[in-house]
Amino acid sequence: MKLWDKGISIDKKIEQFTVGNDREIDIHIAKYDVIASRAHAKMLQKVGILNAHELVELLGGLKILEAQIDNGTFVIDSQFEDVHSKIEFELTKTLGEVGKKIHTARSRNDQVLVALQLYYKENLGTVKQKTQTLFETLLGLADTYKDKVLPGYTHLQVAMPSSFGLWFSAYAEVLIDDVYLLDAAFKTVDQNPLGSAAGYGSSFPIDRELTTKEMNFATLKYNVVAAQMSRGKSERTIAASLGSLCNTMSRFAMDVCLYMSQNFGFISFPDELTTGSSIMPHKKNPDVFELIRGKCNKIQALQTEMLLITNNLPSGYHRDFQLLKENMIAAFEDVKDILDIFNFSIKQVIVKDVDVHNDLYKYLFTVDNINTLVVEGQSFREAYQKIGGEVQNGTYVPDTSKKHSHVGSIHNLSLDKIRDKFPK
Amino acid sequence: MKLWDKGISIDKKIEQFTVGNDREIDIHIAKYDVIASRAHAKMLQKVGILNAHELVELLGGLKILEAQIDNGTFVIDSQFEDVHSKIEFELTKTLGEVGKKIHTARSRNDQVLVALQLYYKENLGTVKQKTQTLFETLLGLADTYKDKVLPGYTHLQVAMPSSFGLWFSAYAEVLIDDVYLLDAAFKTVDQNPLGSAAGYGSSFPIDRELTTKEMNFATLKYNVVAAQMSRGKSERTIAASLGSLCNTMSRFAMDVCLYMSQNFGFISFPDELTTGSSIMPHKKNPDVFELIRGKCNKIQALQTEMLLITNNLPSGYHRDFQLLKENMIAAFEDVKDILDIFNFSIKQVIVKDVDVHNDLYKYLFTVDNINTLVVEGQSFREAYQKIGGEVQNGTYVPDTSKKHSHVGSIHNLSLDKIRDKFPK
Amino acid sequence: MKLWDKGISIDKKIEQFTVGNDREIDIHIAKYDVIASRAHAKMLQKVGILNAHELVELLGGLKILEAQIDNGTFVIDSQFEDVHSKIEFELTKTLGEVGKKIHTARSRNDQVLVALQLYYKENLGTVKQKTQTLFETLLGLADTYKDKVLPGYTHLQVAMPSSFGLWFSAYAEVLIDDVYLLDAAFKTVDQNPLGSAAGYGSSFPIDRELTTKEMNFATLKYNVVAAQMSRGKSERTIAASLGSLCNTMSRFAMDVCLYMSQNFGFISFPDELTTGSSIMPHKKNPDVFELIRGKCNKIQALQTEMLLITNNLPSGYHRDFQLLKENMIAAFEDVKDILDIFNFSIKQVIVKDVDVHNDLYKYLFTVDNINTLVVEGQSFREAYQKIGGEVQNGTYVPDTSKKHSHVGSIHNLSLDKIRDKFPK
Amino acid sequence: MKLWDKGISIDKKIEQFTVGNDREIDIHIAKYDVIASRAHAKMLQKVGILNAHELVELLGGLKILEAQIDNGTFVIDSQFEDVHSKIEFELTKTLGEVGKKIHTARSRNDQVLVALQLYYKENLGTVKQKTQTLFETLLGLADTYKDKVLPGYTHLQVAMPSSFGLWFSAYAEVLIDDVYLLDAAFKTVDQNPLGSAAGYGSSFPIDRELTTKEMNFATLKYNVVAAQMSRGKSERTIAASLGSLCNTMSRFAMDVCLYMSQNFGFISFPDELTTGSSIMPHKKNPDVFELIRGKCNKIQALQTEMLLITNNLPSGYHRDFQLLKENMIAAFEDVKDILDIFNFSIKQVIVKDVDVHNDLYKYLFTVDNINTLVVEGQSFREAYQKIGGEVQNGTYVPDTSKKHSHVGSIHNLSLDKIRDKFPK
Repeated sequence: MKLWDKGISIDKKIEQFTVGNDREIDIHIAKYDVIASRAHAKMLQKVGILNAHELVELLGGLKILEAQIDNGTFVIDSQFEDVHSKIEFELTKTLGEVGKKIHTARSRNDQVLVALQLYYKENLGTVKQKTQTLFETLLGLADTYKDKVLPGYTHLQVAMPSSFGLWFSAYAEVLIDDVYLLDAAFKTVDQNPLGSAAGYGSSFPIDRELTTKEMNFATLKYNVVAAQMSRGKSERTIAASLGSLCNTMSRFAMDVCLYMSQNFGFISFPDELTTGSSIMPHKKNPDVFELIRGKCNKIQALQTEMLLITNNLPSGYHRDFQLLKENMIAAFEDVKDILDIFNFSIKQVIVKDVDVHNDLYKYLFTVDNINTLVVEGQSFREAYQKIGGEVQNGTYVPDTSKKHSHVGSIHNLSLDKIRDKFPK
Repeated sequence: MKLWDKGISIDKKIEQFTVGNDREIDIHIAKYDVIASRAHAKMLQKVGILNAHELVELLGGLKILEAQIDNGTFVIDSQFEDVHSKIEFELTKTLGEVGKKIHTARSRNDQVLVALQLYYKENLGTVKQKTQTLFETLLGLADTYKDKVLPGYTHLQVAMPSSFGLWFSAYAEVLIDDVYLLDAAFKTVDQNPLGSAAGYGSSFPIDRELTTKEMNFATLKYNVVAAQMSRGKSERTIAASLGSLCNTMSRFAMDVCLYMSQNFGFISFPDELTTGSSIMPHKKNPDVFELIRGKCNKIQALQTEMLLITNNLPSGYHRDFQLLKENMIAAFEDVKDILDIFNFSIKQVIVKDVDVHNDLYKYLFTVDNINTLVVEGQSFREAYQKIGGEVQNGTYVPDTSKKHSHVGSIHNLSLDKIRDKFPK
Repeated sequence: MKLWDKGISIDKKIEQFTVGNDREIDIHIAKYDVIASRAHAKMLQKVGILNAHELVELLGGLKILEAQIDNGTFVIDSQFEDVHSKIEFELTKTLGEVGKKIHTARSRNDQVLVALQLYYKENLGTVKQKTQTLFETLLGLADTYKDKVLPGYTHLQVAMPSSFGLWFSAYAEVLIDDVYLLDAAFKTVDQNPLGSAAGYGSSFPIDRELTTKEMNFATLKYNVVAAQMSRGKSERTIAASLGSLCNTMSRFAMDVCLYMSQNFGFISFPDELTTGSSIMPHKKNPDVFELIRGKCNKIQALQTEMLLITNNLPSGYHRDFQLLKENMIAAFEDVKDILDIFNFSIKQVIVKDVDVHNDLYKYLFTVDNINTLVVEGQSFREAYQKIGGEVQNGTYVPDTSKKHSHVGSIHNLSLDKIRDKFPK
Repeated sequence: MKLWDKGISIDKKIEQFTVGNDREIDIHIAKYDVIASRAHAKMLQKVGILNAHELVELLGGLKILEAQIDNGTFVIDSQFEDVHSKIEFELTKTLGEVGKKIHTARSRNDQVLVALQLYYKENLGTVKQKTQTLFETLLGLADTYKDKVLPGYTHLQVAMPSSFGLWFSAYAEVLIDDVYLLDAAFKTVDQNPLGSAAGYGSSFPIDRELTTKEMNFATLKYNVVAAQMSRGKSERTIAASLGSLCNTMSRFAMDVCLYMSQNFGFISFPDELTTGSSIMPHKKNPDVFELIRGKCNKIQALQTEMLLITNNLPSGYHRDFQLLKENMIAAFEDVKDILDIFNFSIKQVIVKDVDVHNDLYKYLFTVDNINTLVVEGQSFREAYQKIGGEVQNGTYVPDTSKKHSHVGSIHNLSLDKIRDKFPK
């Protein structure tokens, strides 16, 4: 059953090709189609296209569908090309002619658009929340391990002293930047597109401000052509924001995998969190973090996909846009999982003691030695030459006593200040 | 059941996260795991690790599984993390101890690798075949419509005369370039990796040349570390080749959609191949070609995904590689569909008559007018100025009589020469 | 001259390879290195590392350099590997020992970082400003041409009535979404990284809040490791935001090129804005808009570059980061140009009259016909079938009289409401 | 001076925007424009458009320009928009009317196309050659260090024994896969496009087979529309092939940087090949390999750029294509440099002795222990459990005596077989 059925039968092969796997994906947006349909119906009544009784009937029909969606009994069977056809069909089956009236003054275009935006809004909110949970976990770990030394590297070469406190809270603070992008993406989809119909608006006297308020959008995408153009554009922005968050987690996972390598040996995890090898009995592999890294990298590629699908297309709807939702929704579901798993796993990290007197690490302190000389009055360049000379002739003795006092440094993590920066 | 089970229970959440949807994807490679297992077993017998009886038993067990795969009764139930565990389990259930011996001298790494490469080889072959079918269809259409004029555009401005013959055969010839890449990708995966085990080879005296011959690989990836490194690298190359093919189809689909626009009106399709609108009763939309374009653009993004998953990882296996297969296999299945649908649909194109005497198109012939003057003795620059003057003062009269004689031109399509170029 | 010179000569070939074209690029950030050096010097004096006299000398030296940069006489000659070496050299040449002291408590890492962030901040501001100029131009054009009909397309098929007013203001409203991302990028770089030194902070008692205030940063990137990690991350975010803006302009340019095609013929431009052909004297090509489209698409690729350079690298500085700035800075310079050219060119657009009574466009109004029937009491589905029937049997008569009243529609553009949405 | 000058002055700002930096880039293709112009002139004489004397004059004029290009005195001054205008101007200045005739029967489109393809062909050849040089260097190093043990890692965890022989020759063998792609790219551009003019051929009786032979192309791109469509398509393919090569080098550089880290300490380089730090006097950083990695990653992003510039554009020339050459040519110049530097630097690698008796590495041999048990008659699973038990209770004793005999394994590198695989 298609909303645009003209009584001409479409080739079977073609139909399957055009419908794709919309039915499976659309389960994720069923709930939001109901919310938007409810708002649309209320508005139609307000402007006189539906009467009060019809509205009551429609709201009742929608409530039943909503309950089915909530309890998992709602199914989009193979006779429907998408969730929108299914919902209209169900309403019409139950309510008769009234069911058909719900589609007055809207097109499938703005119907899909508004349902997707509601899905995106809710899920961006959830992602932000889970990001904050991870953020707090990391600040907690930073506080717990603030005195545990970690060698700091530049160019993968032993460089200067760092700490687990610095390492954990660094990733926490970087997450804030990701939230800036999540918030920008949220704003982008927090603009009601309903009423844009097929992208050129409607000659019905609809009240778009009313549906905006009903669905709790911050504002409207006023211009109907602009509303239509947000297809692909929103997805591109969301993909950039999820990609940014994934970039942080992917790099963190890289550190974790490296630090778990025997050659670093800075951290480990309980056996329950590692996996083995089919041929090497001694292996305890960080598969969880490798999969976090891999999945995050995959999601970082999503923006290119969103971009390629829409780039260089003239304005106006194109069916290509249908393909945007599949991997976009999959990415949201993945990101939520990844955040949960990351948070769950990192809490169980076992932080080891790093012996800074090990020969490997003794040059960690050369800058501290230099700085001592500078404070005693030498110019930086002189001190640098002096300590450099000691390193080369083997007489260097590390000065491990120095305290770093400035904000954000190893001995002054400023965790509260970082916590305060997290966007509301 | 895991090949590396050490008797420690893995957290449920973690397990689900690490297994992902391997079971569904792995159905596509089950057949190839059987092929590779058979070759491996034969080799093990040859080098004395299995005896003749054991080999017979294993081959029998594999035959049963192969039959199940062929007739669709083979299922990877939720207790198995992947197809490889499932197959080893079934062999052991049926054959006892002998079943366990099949994994001697191989690791899951090279087991997955060889099964994927066999899948890729077969499917690259199929894609090439289907590309050739489309190629022949296009040459056929070019021949049929070789006398039908089509305006040629540059900068989307009316430029010079073209023809449907030129247009169809242009895309045919471009497909040849895509086949160069498909062939390169084929070579890349036509190198036996079996025996590389976990990426560092085996201390068993295995005979890799024998398995190479058994599985019909052109050569070996000799170096075991190189074999391992082809994870991701092969996928990147395949994605580049499928992406190239998709680039051709996507651009073709763009032309189709544009030429179907009322403003061009050069072609149309039977109603069965177009779709309608939920609000506009007059619409006949080229959804099929829009979805071809969209799906092709999506596949063009795949290379970035393959790249991001593996980039900057040090050599040696990482679990991230598990994530390569999902979208790679999905892309193969899609590309085969797209080629079928494209071929099926383009055959039904309705080519319209373009009236070159329409004012829109009269400047198509200015270059032909100029060339006539040049042949009569004027320099090109002079003739260009003269005709340009006529265009500006409105006295220009198109010369539509000129024949283009050189190979590959509008009146000399050289279709046989193009056909001869298609790589064997 | 290198800041890290150890007296060992580096291979010539290697040196050229490692320095690259830093000298040319660094001209763009010279000004910001001076600003940051001034703030750093003031802070060093405040915490007692410099005395008051030394500060005066350094500020004097920096003022001279700043003047040279302003008047274009500042040159980074080939003996210097970058602008930072050059500036320290000049200060030392002029001021002696004092010049060397400026590098106390900072590393080249945070020196580059802070200069780049200041460059990014200023340029993101400029880009936003120029975006607002274009936004206002488009709203102006929308108002001027609000009564000019433009056919609206979906699937590139004639669909419903639109207008030049809708078209121009659609792109204006979409620009607002781009500004959300620009603002997020701005926030990302509006955090002082100075004091993070080589990525692990400093044992000098520096005052990072003071430099934050001096350089007018909104806040600090507190954690020194986080400050370091923003290399690449900031560039990725900026590239996403510039890419988003370019996406809008690129799609707009696509529309322009299409609408200039003789087959649409909706707009044109004065001869001074078009270019010709070397062989076709009649051509007036929209090269400017094609180059806008092409350059914008190029910039949309930048994010992938930024991502690939840094992805999967463990935390801590890597020399790879040096490569981020080249195309990032080039992109800023290009985007500013593109915005200027777009604004300059679009103002000169010649909007043509579209004859809606042309047969091509008569179905534009089917939905309006349907809606009239609905308002008269028919259900939408019935009315859809009725008008659809008229279209098929050729009796359809367009109803061109309908007014669209809702906000954001063709006859109610709501330009002021769109203007109000532009972020401060 | 523009080839299409119509006497109307183009806005200054616009002109600068449209010309871009073509002049600098075009120096790289000047030589190839001369080659193609010579072939074109010879053909024009053969088909009677030029007489014998005119041909002699033109060949003489081209020879002078060729000499200037060779000795570096050829300059494209600011009055010319590109190299093609410049060359035609010079010929006309020297030879008068005859100079103007060279442009008969060609357009700037095919003129640019053929010059670029000649540039690409030559440079792909050079890249292949330099790749072979690196390939041989790596095989040489593999042979030299074949007995030097290197720990093998999976999941960055100590896994099984490897060797420097395996490591070096692995990258050699992977380079072969890159050459498959380089060869495919070569084939793509080894098809003469000259004669396609503006993309729709010419009404002059030109002989394209003759120019094909003159310029040493393997075949023609017959269809003139196909020839035009190769703009962007060729660049995409070349970018994929260079990207693949860069992927190999980038991963190799990652290994190098990791193995140079003190925590691995497997290799080092002479001081001349490392760089220092502005604040840490002990640093010897692998900047060369980091820049190789970074530059290679940058080049891996190029394909996305090439793709985005052309994707979804309808067939026919668009000015956007002009933007393809800039970064494409820059990438070729970079790749040649990178190959030289990589080859130069890797030859100087200092391979260290890895103490396999170090506790870190003792589990490298568990699989060898298992295999010994298997050869003695145990099933693999039993032996796996036994050694796994020893590892867990601390009684495991490594068996370092096993020899790997199969082709491509640690003790049978099969370097000659790998050498034989390198494509001619």
